Amino acid sequence: MPRDLIVRSRSYRRFCQEVPIPCEVLRELVDLARLSASGANRQPLKYILSCDAEKNALIFPNLAWAGYLPDWGGPHEGERPSAYIVVLGDLEISKTAGVDHGIAAQSILLGAAEKGFGGCMIASIRREKLREVPKIGPRYAILLALALGKPKETVLIDPVGPDGDIEYWRDAESVHHVPKRALDEIIAG
Amino acid sequence: MPRDLIVRSRSYRRFCQEVPIPCEVLRELVDLARLSASGANRQPLKYILSCDAEKNALIFPNLAWAGYLPDWGGPHEGERPSAYIVVLGDLEISKTAGVDHGIAAQSILLGAAEKGFGGCMIASIRREKLREVPKIGPRYAILLALALGKPKETVLIDPVGPDGDIEYWRDAESVHHVPKRALDEIIAG
Repeated sequence: MPRDLIVRSRSYRRFCQEVPIPCEVLRELVDLARLSASGANRQPLKYILSCDAEKNALIFPNLAWAGYLPDWGGPHEGERPSAYIVVLGDLEISKTAGVDHGIAAQSILLGAAEKGFGGCMIASIRREKLREVPKIGPRYAILLALALGKPKETVLIDPVGPDGDIEYWRDAESVHHVPKRALDEIIAG
Repeated sequence: MPRDLIVRSRSYRRFCQEVPIPCEVLRELVDLARLSASGANRQPLKYILSCDAEKNALIFPNLAWAGYLPDWGGPHEGERPSAYIVVLGDLEISKTAGVDHGIAAQSILLGAAEKGFGGCMIASIRREKLREVPKIGPRYAILLALALGKPKETVLIDPVGPDGDIEYWRDAESVHHVPKRALDEIIAG
């Protein structure tokens, strides 16, 4: 059921880092993106896979986590992602990827959820530093980093309150709360 | 299985127009988008639903179909979409939707596939004319039109040939062919 998977596909930022995701699984996830729609079928997206601690350690420092939790510096060692899929745009194919990377990222995250994993789509990236990862040359625009792992936190959806605040927050038990607008609010006509 | 749904979620452009999609189903599909990730959880997307012939007829003329099939003017009467979801960006929430509409569109189309429907994500829209549809005021940027219906065509995925041509094409039996890049080609590292 897509609804079950979509509800499970919360954005997760803390993981059971000791649980690996094999690169073969990452390839399966990228295959879901490969089979997804692409504007004018140009298919400009390319992917970097990272499934080992050494390569993950090149990626992690260049990602910004949880803008609404300024006192939290991101997941600490032991709770960091087990794997990453970095989504690139091949500039030799197209100068812009349109919304392809949104479509692709959703396919990947839903596939991850089916396998008991989860993750977070990260656009806030130190792009120039991330180019130190092998194969991310000037040919590619860095579009998204998908952080993946076995989630180690509980994420709940709440209705948006009367103040209209959509900022996610963490409660005293470290449960992550995400306010979502009501269906009637987002249907304009 | 996400993979089954993703494989079934081809872009369809010809439909059994006599098969309606009730607006209640469109609301369920938008609810899938509502529960999907949104950059900084800003949730700027709003939606217009169209499930009756009169409203559909306001939308259809303002969409461009199948850029690689220049001799085909789009689906003719009887094969047109039964419904539309127009994806808007509420400019009072955010000037840009990032890739939210790609994520949302994929959730919607996968939900549609599960229900035996299919569709096409259309970005090539006569936006100013589409504002004649009620409620699409200047507050909203028009991001995508999702054309929906019960598909009436067969769409096959082929490997990209040695000439690298990614343009979809229709064969003598009117089967629609979509060349997709190989997995090894899109994994850069």
